Amino acid sequence: MEETFVPFRGIKNDFKARIVCYKQDWTSGFRAGARILAPTTYIFFASAIPVISFGEQLERSTDGTLTAVQTLASTALCGIIHSIIGGQPLLILGVAEPTVLMYTFMYNFAKDREDLGHKLFLPWTGWVCVWTALLLFLLAILGACSIINRFTRLTGELFGLLIAMLFMQQAIKGLVEEFGVPKTQTEGTNQIALQPSWLFGNGMFALVLSFGLLFTGLGSRKARSWRYGTGWLRGFIADYGVPLMILVWTAVSYIPVNEVPRGVPRRLFSPNPWSPGAYSNWTVVKEMLNVPLMYIIGAFIPATMIAVLYYFDHSVASQLAQQKEFNLRKPSSYHYDLLLLGFLTLLCGLIGIPPSNGVIPQSPMHTKSLATLKHQILRHKLVSTARTSMEKNMNLSQLYESMKEAYDVMQTPLVPQMPPTLGLKELKESTVALASSHGYIDAPVDEIVFDVNKDVDDLLPVEVKEQRLSNLLQASMVAACVAAMPLLKKIPTSVLWGYFAFMAIESLPGNQFWERILYLFTAPSRRYKLLEEYHATFVETVPLKAIALFTLFQTSYLLLCFGITWIPIAGVLFPLLIMLLVPVRQYFLPHFFKGAHLQELDAAAYEEAPAITFNMSYDVSGL
Amino acid sequence: MEETFVPFRGIKNDFKARIVCYKQDWTSGFRAGARILAPTTYIFFASAIPVISFGEQLERSTDGTLTAVQTLASTALCGIIHSIIGGQPLLILGVAEPTVLMYTFMYNFAKDREDLGHKLFLPWTGWVCVWTALLLFLLAILGACSIINRFTRLTGELFGLLIAMLFMQQAIKGLVEEFGVPKTQTEGTNQIALQPSWLFGNGMFALVLSFGLLFTGLGSRKARSWRYGTGWLRGFIADYGVPLMILVWTAVSYIPVNEVPRGVPRRLFSPNPWSPGAYSNWTVVKEMLNVPLMYIIGAFIPATMIAVLYYFDHSVASQLAQQKEFNLRKPSSYHYDLLLLGFLTLLCGLIGIPPSNGVIPQSPMHTKSLATLKHQILRHKLVSTARTSMEKNMNLSQLYESMKEAYDVMQTPLVPQMPPTLGLKELKESTVALASSHGYIDAPVDEIVFDVNKDVDDLLPVEVKEQRLSNLLQASMVAACVAAMPLLKKIPTSVLWGYFAFMAIESLPGNQFWERILYLFTAPSRRYKLLEEYHATFVETVPLKAIALFTLFQTSYLLLCFGITWIPIAGVLFPLLIMLLVPVRQYFLPHFFKGAHLQELDAAAYEEAPAITFNMSYDVSGL
Repeated sequence: MEETFVPFRGIKNDFKARIVCYKQDWTSGFRAGARILAPTTYIFFASAIPVISFGEQLERSTDGTLTAVQTLASTALCGIIHSIIGGQPLLILGVAEPTVLMYTFMYNFAKDREDLGHKLFLPWTGWVCVWTALLLFLLAILGACSIINRFTRLTGELFGLLIAMLFMQQAIKGLVEEFGVPKTQTEGTNQIALQPSWLFGNGMFALVLSFGLLFTGLGSRKARSWRYGTGWLRGFIADYGVPLMILVWTAVSYIPVNEVPRGVPRRLFSPNPWSPGAYSNWTVVKEMLNVPLMYIIGAFIPATMIAVLYYFDHSVASQLAQQKEFNLRKPSSYHYDLLLLGFLTLLCGLIGIPPSNGVIPQSPMHTKSLATLKHQILRHKLVSTARTSMEKNMNLSQLYESMKEAYDVMQTPLVPQMPPTLGLKELKESTVALASSHGYIDAPVDEIVFDVNKDVDDLLPVEVKEQRLSNLLQASMVAACVAAMPLLKKIPTSVLWGYFAFMAIESLPGNQFWERILYLFTAPSRRYKLLEEYHATFVETVPLKAIALFTLFQTSYLLLCFGITWIPIAGVLFPLLIMLLVPVRQYFLPHFFKGAHLQELDAAAYEEAPAITFNMSYDVSGL
Repeated sequence: MEETFVPFRGIKNDFKARIVCYKQDWTSGFRAGARILAPTTYIFFASAIPVISFGEQLERSTDGTLTAVQTLASTALCGIIHSIIGGQPLLILGVAEPTVLMYTFMYNFAKDREDLGHKLFLPWTGWVCVWTALLLFLLAILGACSIINRFTRLTGELFGLLIAMLFMQQAIKGLVEEFGVPKTQTEGTNQIALQPSWLFGNGMFALVLSFGLLFTGLGSRKARSWRYGTGWLRGFIADYGVPLMILVWTAVSYIPVNEVPRGVPRRLFSPNPWSPGAYSNWTVVKEMLNVPLMYIIGAFIPATMIAVLYYFDHSVASQLAQQKEFNLRKPSSYHYDLLLLGFLTLLCGLIGIPPSNGVIPQSPMHTKSLATLKHQILRHKLVSTARTSMEKNMNLSQLYESMKEAYDVMQTPLVPQMPPTLGLKELKESTVALASSHGYIDAPVDEIVFDVNKDVDDLLPVEVKEQRLSNLLQASMVAACVAAMPLLKKIPTSVLWGYFAFMAIESLPGNQFWERILYLFTAPSRRYKLLEEYHATFVETVPLKAIALFTLFQTSYLLLCFGITWIPIAGVLFPLLIMLLVPVRQYFLPHFFKGAHLQELDAAAYEEAPAITFNMSYDVSGL
């Protein structure tokens, strides 16, 4: 991405780059067929469950003005629009915890003012959204996202881990609350359920359900490498294990019936979206002019906070969904997406629902699940090609040729300056290495030289199925949730807490910050095991002391940020603290670490030696 | 073992063979130092916990005549005597479930007879024990244990899996009962705890505690291969993880105090061993002559059943503790041990406590834990030898020589005709293979050629620390339990159920029957993974169809045996059904399987080709 602050240039660049891929974004999605449903369902749950839970939280703190219906509606609406006209379709939008906190503060402010009060709360937030949108437009137009280049791995991964900690905190808090009297009572809750004995039973049952979901959910993700069961079954469990487990544990929650009162276990408490009251907020725009002028101007203050928050969250979520390791082929779109976010915030404000923004860990989870999908598709194709070739008694280099052809067909070169067969080099190298390791290359290949099921896995590079369909589908499923609210009510809240913990844990692998922490706790005599597996290069090139110091610094900073989130209103602004990391990284850290080490631990574009451009290097090799 | 039915010859052979090792049995144990405490504690819990639970079961069914105090006393007394003067010190003695069932039947018979009743129940069981002892003497003298040669792996492993199923059944039954009104109520149980709401809470809490113990217990056993923590800590957790987890989960059970009535969670219910009533049964022998003659003679009937049961259980437990894979150096002692069991039964009968016999899975667990101990000791010694050698810049063959010396010192040749350095051949082969794979054998060895921590593990053969100390210590700890009853009462019953499940699962690895079942469920495309690890030879030599048929037969037979245990009194005699397997294996199975396949799946001594005796083969090689 070009670092430019010329007005509109960033947006224009983004738009031009993405429009080229637009058609392929759709065709590629449809070509995946039914397989696209696996990442879709996976992300749908990751998207919907926290939004429902945040909606319930909002309902308690706004005396029912906003509910899960509104948070789901916002997530669905913004998600659908973004997936269709957004820049980076890997980015997942949703109502996030900071938004909920901001709305809580605003409600507490508004409800006690005579000339605002409960009645004009939503029109006033409409004005907040108007200001926020204006600020976001400004940031997008002036190219503020260019700074994203300065957000290194250090920043992104610290933020990712912080979000994981907040999810885990929510899971623990939720579980502890299961032992106490609930803050809001679902209609129909038997008062008997509030006796100490039933509270105790409810809490214990919640432990069983949430840990059950957590362990079986985590286990099912590994199903593909199970030893038992047919490949089809293992694939199915790996793809749909989490939704399946939510079903299973919800079913388990219905087992105890004898004398167990309603309200044990507690279930989701959500309003009926078909009740007449549920629509009072949609006409908020009509009342916006009733808000006193002073408050319209005053709305600028929370708006700046929300704008800073969204600018940061949206960009970092997008960045984490596009990390280097994923080998993405399609370009990023930070400025254009921020502009679109401004419009979406405006829209949400005018219809009186809380706005959505790019969310973590859902966005990187989305990319990861699409990498798995692409892997499955490539694998399927290459395995069948290899099988056919072997039936034709081809030798190893012929086998390679036919696999290369099949591989090429799967690739659609999008960006002219990028060689279309980037992954193929590795493919060839591995194949040739394989051949020479067996000492012959001309004999017909058999299953012993080339074990189709086993070796194809090693050949495949990481690639991501970049398309818009999965995002559109998951957002549509969130929309369907609004209608399916009566069904969602059957899910026990404890399953939700288990799912929060699941999300926190699922977001850890691949986070180098987390992996460095683990590495430091690895017994020295066992470090060789790490080297035997796939590992980041810093493990071999950077001395342990530098790794330890760097990780210690990052951990202290993480704990500082985590501490800040506990301070009532200032807590919402923890992104400022994280943004402070940019100058710290740029001007402070280089005094303490060798450049080469820092480069390995936290590659920053602005520190890299000026690289020869792609075309030039190609010319050189072409001489 | 010689197959002889000449009176007394079997006993004499056993005695002569074991007396040679007797001194070494003790010195070897003491030489292990504090490390011996790891297998000791491990087996102590495996021994004591089921005995306490069976004691509680017995207390309920004999209206308090016999309690956990008596079952613990019997286990401790028999264990101590057996560990000192018994033949095979790997064998663990304890009061087992079938004994409890027999005593229950006998109590139900006795309590309704006017001339026997509650008062003369124990004196009458004294007579039963007298008869049982006589029958056991007869069996031992006439060499009945020679038949043990015909008990193949088929029989032993089927029995092992049946016991695992019974333990698992007990765990599930126990957990289900936690949701119901308890059969006996601990003194001081609050009646509030019997309300449906608290019953529900108690059941859910029981699920948390038992699954918590099960998962953390199983996890702790794998601590040695963890990546995190120092070697010392990992070793400690692997050695003492299970007792530690019982402590931890008992502590957890004390966390809920607010308004939770006494009796939630339920805890062990055992009488105070210091109360005057607890000793009424020890003087049973004085009243034995008050039993009417008819009942003295009638006692012969239950005695035959118990004798058959003990003869079978004791021998199979001993056999499973001495399986081929353990590479034991010291001889077996079936006849002599059966004779001793007769004396122990007599002793227990005369002091009015239920007798003990060899137990599964504790006995094979004992051997396995001693194999781990021996491995640790050998490893420690060889690692330090290798380190010293490498500091002296020795080359690989010198390194081997010094390791060989160290290894030889650790071995004490006991049986003259057995070469003392059986495991060393493998040691040399591996070392040489290692050297040639790195291409040089004369250069000084460094950590890259010979990674001390990693490679020593591969070199070591399976060996067992065969000694008497661990058995003596664990039995003494069981004796201490009687005194520590007030402490034991703090353990929640649900932790017990978790421990039952733990024992069932721990007994599975190494059972080829179980592994064959798993093998059949392994997806064909994943079978290569099994071949990459340590595996039994049949996987490679026997066609899948034969493996499947054999396993199917064994599984059907297992389910038949399991079904039989559900039939009230006949259920105790399931050993007869298992003994029936001997002729089935010998005369029936050979019609359905090829001899070579059968030999791989279930080696039977009587089918083996006449082997050249050990001395001869040595002469030949000496030519």
